[in-house]
Amino acid sequence: MRVMVGGTFDPLHAGHRKLLARSFELAGPDGEVVIGLTTDEFAGAKVHPVHTYEERLENIRGFIREHGYTAAWKVEQLVDRYGSALDADFDILVVSEETFPVAVEINVLRREQGRKKVDLHEISCVLAEDGRRISSTRIYRGEIDRQGRLIR
Amino acid sequence: MRVMVGGTFDPLHAGHRKLLARSFELAGPDGEVVIGLTTDEFAGAKVHPVHTYEERLENIRGFIREHGYTAAWKVEQLVDRYGSALDADFDILVVSEETFPVAVEINVLRREQGRKKVDLHEISCVLAEDGRRISSTRIYRGEIDRQGRLIR
Repeated sequence: MRVMVGGTFDPLHAGHRKLLARSFELAGPDGEVVIGLTTDEFAGAKVHPVHTYEERLENIRGFIREHGYTAAWKVEQLVDRYGSALDADFDILVVSEETFPVAVEINVLRREQGRKKVDLHEISCVLAEDGRRISSTRIYRGEIDRQGRLIR
Repeated sequence: MRVMVGGTFDPLHAGHRKLLARSFELAGPDGEVVIGLTTDEFAGAKVHPVHTYEERLENIRGFIREHGYTAAWKVEQLVDRYGSALDADFDILVVSEETFPVAVEINVLRREQGRKKVDLHEISCVLAEDGRRISSTRIYRGEIDRQGRLIR
């Protein structure tokens, strides 16, 4: 199957890893995964500093290599919330709880343009040790590490 | 993975078949699928007549047999919108666009009870030949067949 997923993926925490892993599982060994990665300009709107596009891309590459996924994959620059998800021919869009509303918008816009809606896969947020969700902001603040362990 | 899906599945049309097929794909060959099947009493609220629980169950069994899925599976009686999805330990709930709001409710109730939210997989509706969605009501009215072909 052809799967799309998008984000800033910085730092690559347990929630991002679940998004990417699930995307490759859904695609299957012979499928395809398209990863939309926000450009530095678009990611610049975040409340915390973000690693460069090249650094973030290298971390994603490392994750895929480490897991030995055999599906075809490519990374596309995301300069807005939609990327190629409005026009591309694909099966499943993988999103987090936070980005689910964007996925619904994408399906509305696809239908308006006469394209088929895609199936949506929502990953529930991964919880840190304290039962609150893992987020880049919490990691940046030094509350938790990338696996969600509390930093004391 | 452990996957749950629910419905009345009558008549077993292309949309239902996609729901079931995707559930088994998500579970994987060694996973488990729990199918919640509405009881005759609960399904009785539908606007059109519904086959008996036993007949609907037999059609589901036939579908699974025909596809040779190897995951473990069982059918549970659904007497309300939630079934065991509120309490069970599982990974992914598969729903249609129409039932996605119920899935969101289930996750809210799970969190209130201190359980982890599950991931949600929303199947976009399968379209009939005329570009409108396949539904049991349309089949019952004689507009389309179970594959979504127009009946002229």
